Amino acid sequence: MALSKLNFLNLNQLTTKSNFFANRYYYLPNSRNVKCFSTALVPGEPSGPSVSSSIPGPKSREMIANLDKIQFASAIWYFTDYKKSLGNYIVDVDGNSLLDVFSQISSLPLGYNHPDLHKVIQDPDNQIAFVNRPALGIFPAEGWPEKLTSSLLSIAPKGHTQVNTFACGSCSNENAFKATFMWYRNKQRGGAPITDEENSSCLINRQPGSTPFTIMSFKGSFHGQTLGCLTTTHSRSIFKLDFPALDWPIASFPRYKYPLEEFAEENKAEDRKCLAEVEEEFERFNKSGRFVAGVVIEPVQAEGGDVHASPEFFQELQRITKKNGAALIIDEVQTGGGATGKYWCHEHFNLPDPADFVTFSKKMLTGGFYSLPEFRPQQGLKIFNTWMGDPSKVLLLEKVVEVVKRDNLLNLAQESGKRLMDGLKDLSKRYPQHIKNNVRGIGTFCAFDLSSPQKRDETFVKLQHHGVQSGPCGEQTLRLRPSLVFQPHHADIFLDILETVLNDIQTV
Amino acid sequence: MALSKLNFLNLNQLTTKSNFFANRYYYLPNSRNVKCFSTALVPGEPSGPSVSSSIPGPKSREMIANLDKIQFASAIWYFTDYKKSLGNYIVDVDGNSLLDVFSQISSLPLGYNHPDLHKVIQDPDNQIAFVNRPALGIFPAEGWPEKLTSSLLSIAPKGHTQVNTFACGSCSNENAFKATFMWYRNKQRGGAPITDEENSSCLINRQPGSTPFTIMSFKGSFHGQTLGCLTTTHSRSIFKLDFPALDWPIASFPRYKYPLEEFAEENKAEDRKCLAEVEEEFERFNKSGRFVAGVVIEPVQAEGGDVHASPEFFQELQRITKKNGAALIIDEVQTGGGATGKYWCHEHFNLPDPADFVTFSKKMLTGGFYSLPEFRPQQGLKIFNTWMGDPSKVLLLEKVVEVVKRDNLLNLAQESGKRLMDGLKDLSKRYPQHIKNNVRGIGTFCAFDLSSPQKRDETFVKLQHHGVQSGPCGEQTLRLRPSLVFQPHHADIFLDILETVLNDIQTV
Repeated sequence: MALSKLNFLNLNQLTTKSNFFANRYYYLPNSRNVKCFSTALVPGEPSGPSVSSSIPGPKSREMIANLDKIQFASAIWYFTDYKKSLGNYIVDVDGNSLLDVFSQISSLPLGYNHPDLHKVIQDPDNQIAFVNRPALGIFPAEGWPEKLTSSLLSIAPKGHTQVNTFACGSCSNENAFKATFMWYRNKQRGGAPITDEENSSCLINRQPGSTPFTIMSFKGSFHGQTLGCLTTTHSRSIFKLDFPALDWPIASFPRYKYPLEEFAEENKAEDRKCLAEVEEEFERFNKSGRFVAGVVIEPVQAEGGDVHASPEFFQELQRITKKNGAALIIDEVQTGGGATGKYWCHEHFNLPDPADFVTFSKKMLTGGFYSLPEFRPQQGLKIFNTWMGDPSKVLLLEKVVEVVKRDNLLNLAQESGKRLMDGLKDLSKRYPQHIKNNVRGIGTFCAFDLSSPQKRDETFVKLQHHGVQSGPCGEQTLRLRPSLVFQPHHADIFLDILETVLNDIQTV
Repeated sequence: MALSKLNFLNLNQLTTKSNFFANRYYYLPNSRNVKCFSTALVPGEPSGPSVSSSIPGPKSREMIANLDKIQFASAIWYFTDYKKSLGNYIVDVDGNSLLDVFSQISSLPLGYNHPDLHKVIQDPDNQIAFVNRPALGIFPAEGWPEKLTSSLLSIAPKGHTQVNTFACGSCSNENAFKATFMWYRNKQRGGAPITDEENSSCLINRQPGSTPFTIMSFKGSFHGQTLGCLTTTHSRSIFKLDFPALDWPIASFPRYKYPLEEFAEENKAEDRKCLAEVEEEFERFNKSGRFVAGVVIEPVQAEGGDVHASPEFFQELQRITKKNGAALIIDEVQTGGGATGKYWCHEHFNLPDPADFVTFSKKMLTGGFYSLPEFRPQQGLKIFNTWMGDPSKVLLLEKVVEVVKRDNLLNLAQESGKRLMDGLKDLSKRYPQHIKNNVRGIGTFCAFDLSSPQKRDETFVKLQHHGVQSGPCGEQTLRLRPSLVFQPHHADIFLDILETVLNDIQTV
């Protein structure tokens, strides 16, 4: 859609530019005026968005053109002024200030320029970690076990005492797969020693040293874009086209009918159908000797369109996986870190046992995984790379965990999430021609579908031009991935602008 | 080997502990006393190593035990006091100070706590980048193209104008492979549009959307440990055992006889044999429809034992690769960054054309690759992940590049490397029972073989206990990977201690 065709609302009617600070009055033209006057958790945050140019604006366009001389840059949305961005507001280089409910693809835990994070960098003792990045697998720093304990382990999923760090989500999943393969092969060996043939054959990618093992994944999933992860990713063809992939098992992820309460029986049948596929794939692959060592799954298929499944589905999946001697790898790269109102989304599912692996990245600032003790490697260098994560990121995470606790941000995610969900459900009733009745979410991890892919794109762009940065996913979904400092009054601002946009969309 | 069996030299005879500063006199018991009194580039650096406990010492052992409660930690060498480590000296938590010629698996460009890098962190403007890590593929910061230009592009291999950043070496290689596959498929398509069948089949890992393409690699290589990279890694079975691998072509890497000048004809024949294998693998795979889209190679096989090949081998490899319509991916993750006396080791080879891809990480502080313009993706999101590198690392790299230029560190690498090579060759002549006559190196990127794997291990441990941190690789090799602030007088200290150790090793 050409940006020039958009009919902009003059955003000056929404914000008082001279009052560019929190706790000031902010006029909402729609229905939620009474709720929006709460104190911003990040001092100095704007009272509302402010947009005065097209997005991307002229400065962004010029910078995109400059960057494009160096690398493919056509996918850039706009250049950002990170100095001016604050809290929930992202400010672009053209001076537009947007309420950011996408937060860098869900990767900012405390919004922009949180003062407590600045303090971490300013502490001279901490600067040592930023200047001297270690090869963590060989030369960790004094105090490293304590840092892991005060950060990652202090918020570990129930039952987890073991954690490894990596640089990003893909590395975390790749290494979880590898740890799974080792564990499975060791079970198969039953204590027998590794043979010379295994050692020599693996060097040239042959069996028996290289294994024919597989990881099961689900249609619609996203687990990263390295070749191993990509084999388990199935959300969109753009990620996969032209790349080689391994022939690993794929089962269907439930696709529910909404409203859930009206279709309880149908949705239970959908669970059963998908779980039957899981059983079939186990049987088919295990029978052929291409053993399924693990099953990887997102608690909510985020990139694939924010597709939710029931706790019962996950409980039963765990039972089937265990029955087949495989590991359950829960990929919390996007769902983890607190937005669902718990640190780990799968903790909403009341699984009978802890997950075998929980992988993370994004809001955790470092990649990594929790795993049960039985998945510890038996040898060094196998779950390994030069850096093995980055202690400077863990220093920042330690402060994030402290702030989340101090400011009660998990409860806030539930509270702001309820405001969002109530508002979205209300809008879907009042604008059924635009918003489908499958509004869904846990905490602030919410999403809604528009009436078509085209209307989703239009809504996305118009939201931007009215001062809201949201994120598309799936075919026709908009996802909300605000940071943990997203408060109910931010939800009100978002909902109000969304309603303005809905009024502005033509019904075809 | 049990540490207690080692016969330690009393290191007090090597260092004057009270004179723990640079530019002080330092007594070398062996032959190189006259050369070692130069000014340290990093002010305050110790005048020599100082070891007073076993390594790992009692404090390290306790910390390893603590870490082992949280994660597999048996592969840790020792815990490090990064506050006390300085320049070329790594200080462990037991107070031992070692001359570090391994520099965190070759990943520290300027040694420990370089004052100029501390200044980068202390600058409030820079702190913005450390606190607000962007999703670079969508929301880059103002000034990002300029930062790329002043850092990575200012030192680009000749003929390269395009650069992409990633988090680590594995990600860089994985993405270079992917960009290669896209480019190859687009050539195959010859402008034909992408079909619905391609889009739907790739979602379930099937052809034609998923391609049967391959990347050729070499025996003895190391390109990373994610599943795609691991398929092209063949250095040691420990990295590969138990993991699935793709069936991709593998050719032999030359294994020369030394001294090179004596075996010129034999080594040329070795080149021809290996290149013939490359041709055969191209033919075999291309004929079977499993097209070889790219060839990945290290300029020096580092992890595999510092195996060197001739410029002529690389020149001819480029010609064959081009003739077969494939891309040449030069993996400079370990060789890049200046230790060879040039930023890019392959620039020593006088290739007729620029390499198609040059991948990097480690001393560059950020992962990434340079690539020729024809390898630019045609669509967004394909060479993509959430973070796409980390601007805070590029800020540090920018300063590194400035310091390398200011302090003339590429020349220094040549100068210190010559001192190292001369000394090692001399030692290999005087201690032929211990050091094989295949001492090899470019700049400070040097290595030597001991008489057996056991003697290598013994030398490694005794070097540590005499105050030198080296790195093992291959079967019986020690590699030197000092940082760029390694000066001739550090080479003298290293050579002197090595000689002490050689005198202490029993000939079996």
